Amino acid sequence: MSRIVYVNGDYLPEEEAKISIFDRGFLMADGVYEVTSVLDGKLLEFEGHLNRLKRSLSELDMAQPPQFDDLLEIHRKLVADNDVTEGGVYLQITRGAADRDFAYPKDATPTMVLFTQSKVVEHAPAAQTGIKVISIEDIRWGRRDIKTVQLLYPSMGKMMAKAAGKDDAWMVEDGEVTEGTSNNAYIVKGNTIITRALSNDILHGITRASVLRYAREAQMRVEERSFTIEEAQAADEAFITSASTFVMPVVEIDGEAIGEGAPGAHAKRLREIYIEESRKRAV
Amino acid sequence: MSRIVYVNGDYLPEEEAKISIFDRGFLMADGVYEVTSVLDGKLLEFEGHLNRLKRSLSELDMAQPPQFDDLLEIHRKLVADNDVTEGGVYLQITRGAADRDFAYPKDATPTMVLFTQSKVVEHAPAAQTGIKVISIEDIRWGRRDIKTVQLLYPSMGKMMAKAAGKDDAWMVEDGEVTEGTSNNAYIVKGNTIITRALSNDILHGITRASVLRYAREAQMRVEERSFTIEEAQAADEAFITSASTFVMPVVEIDGEAIGEGAPGAHAKRLREIYIEESRKRAV
Repeated sequence: MSRIVYVNGDYLPEEEAKISIFDRGFLMADGVYEVTSVLDGKLLEFEGHLNRLKRSLSELDMAQPPQFDDLLEIHRKLVADNDVTEGGVYLQITRGAADRDFAYPKDATPTMVLFTQSKVVEHAPAAQTGIKVISIEDIRWGRRDIKTVQLLYPSMGKMMAKAAGKDDAWMVEDGEVTEGTSNNAYIVKGNTIITRALSNDILHGITRASVLRYAREAQMRVEERSFTIEEAQAADEAFITSASTFVMPVVEIDGEAIGEGAPGAHAKRLREIYIEESRKRAV
Repeated sequence: MSRIVYVNGDYLPEEEAKISIFDRGFLMADGVYEVTSVLDGKLLEFEGHLNRLKRSLSELDMAQPPQFDDLLEIHRKLVADNDVTEGGVYLQITRGAADRDFAYPKDATPTMVLFTQSKVVEHAPAAQTGIKVISIEDIRWGRRDIKTVQLLYPSMGKMMAKAAGKDDAWMVEDGEVTEGTSNNAYIVKGNTIITRALSNDILHGITRASVLRYAREAQMRVEERSFTIEEAQAADEAFITSASTFVMPVVEIDGEAIGEGAPGAHAKRLREIYIEESRKRAV
């Protein structure tokens, strides 16, 4: 069945959802995005995503598109019209269409596009088995804190993982793990959750912020610092977080089993807490 | 007047030229491009651009779109239909439209889009005065040899230059100049043309290759090696090359005049030779 999607004020069947070839999102990757998860037909962490979106726009001197203030309503309408009980809503804003020029256009209207994706999130099979990752060099640009659509390398990384028969890739820069292709990376040693500190080097995950808060509330220790692949391989547990995977155990890195080679207790507990708390706060 | 542009086999008025919001060029910057200059209504360096395009596709495991073999004919028809005597033809290929996923789609048809831009190139006023550049840190991804549409940072660099009242920016990594925002960078000392050697750090400019060949034929010395901003500021001349600027003198870097602060003799001579030779070989 065809989805109903949103393009610049219109709700359209997906086959009719088009943008100009002059859109700077298409020509120059001049755009930002967010993905908000849906559980029980409700939006998780909506405010967090909206705040990060505002920050991304601001960092790039990009104007808010018309209807920006209607975003919650647009999300809800798309979820309802497409009968999404579980999955996500993808949102992208670009600087708009203008004749191609490296300089920003003076009078373009920003483009705003949203669409839904239905998928199993809460009971995703991978949450039971854990995922296996490879490490690859992180060669992305230096402003990974801005959630831009420059996703070619993460996409290449995902394909490198698949070619190796694994699920995902962790990226390494100057010998230390930055993050996964589309998620933040963590290891657990004893009762301590270790994840890279925030900077321009990684995405400031909305799920990351919540999970670290829940971890502290659950009496786990949290250390925000960098770690190497070797330290990760010697850890008791490893996991990733993202809006669309919640908390997902990692059971193998570069062929080395982590801990018992099965999802660890901390990751499992944090996944449970995250789902429970997010569900309570869903809008 | 509205241009006629090309989108996946169709010639359309630009207002009707649209692509799916699910195009991976739009969602993930999963696309590559070329710009071929037009002089006297003819294409410059067409074969060079076509070869680089094939290499970009190959490096990204991207298939050639249908009609790929008709590219020369498509270029010529657009130049003719739009009465372009001077300017350029922009060409973009993406992995095509598919539901959003970091993994490459199995069965998407690549998207191919072309459009023309008329502009003064041969007698561009800037060629007489030279341009002024600032230096900025190069924070782009690590595969700048692939001509992808991930152009957000070059675009930001252009805006930084404008904000500083200058024309363009040279990017610096580990203390050495990589290239301009959309051009290769050169300095001249005595009779020696100095430009960074080819690697994954810079675009393998089609104009660069031709200009270096012409320089050697004109008895200039060529050194392919990196240089610093300080060395550039102390040079006798500086210039850039690109398909859309040919050879363009640089007369100021970070507020310091280069040589006499006016276009240098080598840059002027190379521009003349480049235009003369390209014109002869135009198709």
